[in-house]
Amino acid sequence: MARIAITDGMSDGAMKILSDAGHEISSEHFEPPDLLSGVLSTFDAVIVRSATKMTREVITSSITESNGIQFIGRAGVGIDNIDLEAATEHGIIVCNTPGASTRSVVELTIGHLLSSVRNIPRADRTMRAGSWEKKTLRGSEIYGKRLGLIGFGRIARGVADAARSLGMEIHAFDPYVENGSIDPSMCTLHEELDDIFTICTHISVHCNFSEETKHIVNSDRISLMTGVGADGIECGNHLISCARGGIIDEDAALKALESGQLSSLALDVFETEPPDQSPLLAHDDFHGSPHIAASTMEAQARIGVEMANTLLEFLDGIRPVNSLN
Amino acid sequence: MARIAITDGMSDGAMKILSDAGHEISSEHFEPPDLLSGVLSTFDAVIVRSATKMTREVITSSITESNGIQFIGRAGVGIDNIDLEAATEHGIIVCNTPGASTRSVVELTIGHLLSSVRNIPRADRTMRAGSWEKKTLRGSEIYGKRLGLIGFGRIARGVADAARSLGMEIHAFDPYVENGSIDPSMCTLHEELDDIFTICTHISVHCNFSEETKHIVNSDRISLMTGVGADGIECGNHLISCARGGIIDEDAALKALESGQLSSLALDVFETEPPDQSPLLAHDDFHGSPHIAASTMEAQARIGVEMANTLLEFLDGIRPVNSLN
Repeated sequence: MARIAITDGMSDGAMKILSDAGHEISSEHFEPPDLLSGVLSTFDAVIVRSATKMTREVITSSITESNGIQFIGRAGVGIDNIDLEAATEHGIIVCNTPGASTRSVVELTIGHLLSSVRNIPRADRTMRAGSWEKKTLRGSEIYGKRLGLIGFGRIARGVADAARSLGMEIHAFDPYVENGSIDPSMCTLHEELDDIFTICTHISVHCNFSEETKHIVNSDRISLMTGVGADGIECGNHLISCARGGIIDEDAALKALESGQLSSLALDVFETEPPDQSPLLAHDDFHGSPHIAASTMEAQARIGVEMANTLLEFLDGIRPVNSLN
Repeated sequence: MARIAITDGMSDGAMKILSDAGHEISSEHFEPPDLLSGVLSTFDAVIVRSATKMTREVITSSITESNGIQFIGRAGVGIDNIDLEAATEHGIIVCNTPGASTRSVVELTIGHLLSSVRNIPRADRTMRAGSWEKKTLRGSEIYGKRLGLIGFGRIARGVADAARSLGMEIHAFDPYVENGSIDPSMCTLHEELDDIFTICTHISVHCNFSEETKHIVNSDRISLMTGVGADGIECGNHLISCARGGIIDEDAALKALESGQLSSLALDVFETEPPDQSPLLAHDDFHGSPHIAASTMEAQARIGVEMANTLLEFLDGIRPVNSLN
């Protein structure tokens, strides 16, 4: 039996998973003075969201010579509030719940893709303004087109499955995925990122942001896109990102919209959030959403359950797949 | 060898199908005086779009005792410009090309569905207005929810396949479809329209407009919807139509948006088009498009090919499936 502190709340269903497994649960929020005075050192594990700041000092205060927390769970994805280095130094495992939001991100990506090729936000905007742009808002189908995925992790694979079922041909670039590990009937994996741009008319970004991926979608690459679908239809070029801001060079994307090289751009993430002054927001062929890809009721409900199961794995002596250190 | 008049243009590929089959093609637009003086009576078949008006008088002028047109092809769907009764009286077969736009309508329906549950047009609108509604625009997933289809013809079945591949459970009402003809693992067919409303949180309209279907989506039925998904998530109620205006009672739908009984309403078709004065256009949870479900490059390209193949069937002595009389 372990003692588990839940400091930022958790769903009843998730707490029940832990208590049914025989563990002692305390759901109580602690302020920094309590955290620094060692309130967590009587627990074996702590589960936080974003409100509890697990700084180096708090982590040090949460362990003693022989006892204290061995596990920090972040119910969610971002770990800005956890000093991962300090946790690692003290042998504390840190886990988050990346899988809980996968489906939500997949669905928003497909929603943005269809909204782009059929001009849905623009259609609604022009109708609200009193015009009826039936003649000008001719779109194109995604069926029979090539979708290029930059990054081929969990979310990209979900997007691939959904888009393939809607009739798209899937191509991907991910230097961290072994070619032999992917069924070529599901997705063609490419060794050069440029190939995604020369082959695909529709491209969706699904990698992490890092120095390696900063502005990998830039003017040179966008200019490689041909605008002609695999079915011979001149469907134009379409770019989407529900990943992280900064992977797409927004200035380059705006120029490509202005020149017509890009027919549409859909972004859920931005180099600066909110993107207050961005001229993108005034372009007719852009549409955006305010970083809501993971923001669904279902993702929130799953986060707690995924966290509880991850902690149970850890308490059973299994190193959780979601471990970050 | 038949003589075929193409009076409103046709794609090169479609004309090639006809000429390759050995037929003589004349692509020329005729004005009413020419039509009424019998210019079409030297042809065996005529293919029109919407510009050539095949009135009773024009049809009568296009036949002689022993000769004249035996086939009127409408490259497209609507046949407002063809007097079907007069054609039937004279033994002339009238065909249109309903299949050409199926895929486009399916994709717009799925696009509107995802746009609704994730608030995509609203997200874009609020961003353009300078706000960042990340906290308030929490959506829901379609995965695990029940989609109700009113009408279960060609388009609805395409929507069913797409939505099922995205994880939805499909229910349909169509009094003209025999229950035994549908695989129950694909779709549950209901005998009462009310059942669609009591069971499903997401409903999409795919029937024709007629006196029988006018306002079949009304206050009483909308009030039956529970707002709780098959997965227990309180996802709200979502209504979509890319079919024809007038099937949904727009006043009732607006009231349901205002009361919160409907969480979203997405319409590509309206009781009056354009819906200039409709208060729907000012509601945050509504979004619309100006009757563009069939308006894609692909649908246009396929219309000619489908028409050409339909005419070849007729000339081979087969009664075309697309015959309207």
